Formats: sequence, C-alpha cells, structure tokens
Amino acid sequence: MPTPTDRTRPLRLRDRMTDDDTALREVLDEALVCHVGFIVDGDPRILPTLFVREGDLVYLHGSSGSRLALLARGDGVPVCLTVTVLDGLVLARSQFHHSVNYRSVIVHGTAHLVTDDSAKLRVLAAMVDKVGTGRAAETRAPDDRELAQTAVLALALDEAATKRRAGGVVDDEADLTIPAWAGVVPIRQVRGEPQPDAGVTVPLPAYLTGQPGRTS
Amino acid sequence: MPTPTDRTRPLRLRDRMTDDDTALREVLDEALVCHVGFIVDGDPRILPTLFVREGDLVYLHGSSGSRLALLARGDGVPVCLTVTVLDGLVLARSQFHHSVNYRSVIVHGTAHLVTDDSAKLRVLAAMVDKVGTGRAAETRAPDDRELAQTAVLALALDEAATKRRAGGVVDDEADLTIPAWAGVVPIRQVRGEPQPDAGVTVPLPAYLTGQPGRTS
Repeated sequence: MPTPTDRTRPLRLRDRMTDDDTALREVLDEALVCHVGFIVDGDPRILPTLFVREGDLVYLHGSSGSRLALLARGDGVPVCLTVTVLDGLVLARSQFHHSVNYRSVIVHGTAHLVTDDSAKLRVLAAMVDKVGTGRAAETRAPDDRELAQTAVLALALDEAATKRRAGGVVDDEADLTIPAWAGVVPIRQVRGEPQPDAGVTVPLPAYLTGQPGRTS
Repeated sequence: MPTPTDRTRPLRLRDRMTDDDTALREVLDEALVCHVGFIVDGDPRILPTLFVREGDLVYLHGSSGSRLALLARGDGVPVCLTVTVLDGLVLARSQFHHSVNYRSVIVHGTAHLVTDDSAKLRVLAAMVDKVGTGRAAETRAPDDRELAQTAVLALALDEAATKRRAGGVVDDEADLTIPAWAGVVPIRQVRGEPQPDAGVTVPLPAYLTGQPGRTS
C-alpha cells in the first residue's frame, strides 16, 4: 500500500527494504509496543505506547492529557511511528560484521485524534482483542468518563517503510580462520505463566493457554 | 545522576517515575536496542539502533553515512533516546484498566560524534562485549576502513527519566464481580539455541551457554 517518498527511501542498505505489504502488516500485528516520535518546542520526543492496526491505519493509545494528544488537537500532529522486532544476534568473527536480525516498520505522517465515540470504542476493543481474540467481549467497555480520559490517534500507512535483516553471518573471506565462535543466537519474546488476580475463579481463557506464544 | 527538567518531568502518572539511578542503569544495560528520535527538515524521525552505556554516557552505533551521523557533525544533534523493556500484559476486568508492565528510560540531550579512533575502538568493543563478556577479545577489531565507515555517537545521561509499571491488576471495586479472567501475563525476551555458522569448530563460548537469558 505505501509508495516510496524521500522520507522512506533509504540512504543505505537498500537491500534491507521490502515492498511486501504482508511483511508490513505482520510486524505491526505482532508487536505490542510502538515508539512515536514527535516535536515539542523544537525538540524531538519519543513516546512508547500501545497500538493496533486496522486495514491501512494504525491507531495509537494515549491519555487525553498527554502531550501527544494535546498536540494532535485540530489539524493533527506530525509523527514518526516505529515498530522494531528483534529476531536474533548475529555474531561474526570480525567486530564490524556483528549485527542483529530484526524486522522494523517506520511510518511517517500526521496523526489525528479519533473524536467519534463509537469509533473510539471500536478501536479500544480491538486493542484489547490484540492480546487475545474475544477478550473485549468478556470485559467491561469504557464508560463516558473513561472514554473522555482516553485518546485514540489515527495514522495512515500511506508513507511506510519495512526493513529486515534475516539469515546468517556475513564475514570477510580473510576472517574465516579466526578461531571465534560465529553464528546466530535467535531472540524471541515469550509469554510466561499467567498469574491470576486475587478472586479470579473463571478458568484461563483459550487465548492465554497453550505454548507461550511469540508476542514481541 | 540526572536532575529533573521540564522535559523529564511527567505531566501525568508521576507515581511511575523513579529517581533510582540503579534502575536507569539496569534498563540501559539489559536492553540491546534503543530508539533515537531526531529532526530532519522539521520532521520527526526515529532510528532503532544498538547502544552501550559506560558510566554516565550512552554510546550509539551507526553508519558514518547515516542521516543521524551526518547531522551530528560539528555541534552535535539534539536527540531523544528511548529504551523500553516490556515485562508483562496486565489484563483487567475493565478494558480501561488494561495496561502493560514495563520499564523505560528516556534521555534528552545533544549527541556528539566520537572522533578519536582509540575511543571509538574501545566503545565498539564494549558493544560487542554487551552480548557476552570477553567476545571483543576473541574477535577481530575494526581496521581503518571499517572504523571510518562506523559512527559512534555519545550522549550524556544528565537529563534522563526512568519509568516503570510493575505489579498486578488495579480494577475498580464495582468491576470485581465481572466474570472475566484477570491477572498478569509475564513477558520475557529469551535467547534460543545458538546456530553456528558453517565451518565453526570452536566450542560455544561460556557467555552463550546455560539457560536462555533475559536479553530484551
């Protein structure tokens, strides 16, 4: 869906770019936390926050009183959204060729406040369902006061870049005789054993059982 | 070490701030990837990159040809550095009280290029040793060409904020009877089984053996 622009075209390592929309969506759907860059009084700021993708939009979660939400009033706020999933450590025989395997998405654009309450409710439910499909239906939806305290920002995926490094070590030929261990150490983000709150009597829902899933 | 400023003083959720220097250092030493925010032509940008802390400084890894390194020439580049470690999903009975457990550090300041070659070599070795102590000594240090291609930026920790959420669900009293599972799902980043490169005959080094470690 996105088309390359001056902001998404890389200066270097062009081979790590991918035009694959599926890869873009997978990274956004797998990761729970994104980092949002914006400008306050001429200074760069970054906010880590929760988000969800729906179609060709990402929605960011925030407090109505947060700087980002205040800046977005009216015409919206220019942002850079970044999602990074670390997949492995690449340990080469030379320090220079040490690297990491990763997948990342960077989105440039203007984030706008979602002001329609029914749209906000739908997006907030989708954020809860990102943890486990069906959870939104089991839990209490926000009341008017909670909804007023919560900001939802929408950002189009029109100007987005997906990058990845995968695979093994790339060492110089002359370094192959160096007696250092070389290879890839996979990295995964996993869910541990769920710890129920006091008083919980309902069984663990299906979306929390089974093998610890990759969650990033 | 840091003192609060207008940029590090939170607008809200002040109870999630900590003045603990140990917490600041632990997050920076545990995380492998940071996100660096900066401004290009008036637009916010974010670059995910590798870094290492030494004393009251963080050092960022980059390519000499990257936008960030080019902007840092001369007087340095104003940046916002963020490190986020996700520790768990907090699943409440109300959608509003869903949250995540996390630890995060945000550093504001001006990043400067490290221009002294011996200092660059030392920092790059420290980045390799962050994966496993002793690895820098086993691997080939950068030659002049590689060193010229690599940028190292230094950023002081003078203006830094550490935040965290830990612990369990905080639901409203009236919601405690809602029959939804509630609790915390821990999240950890783990290392998988190391995959040796072709031709590797040396045994797995001690820093890669044992239990998969928390790596973030």
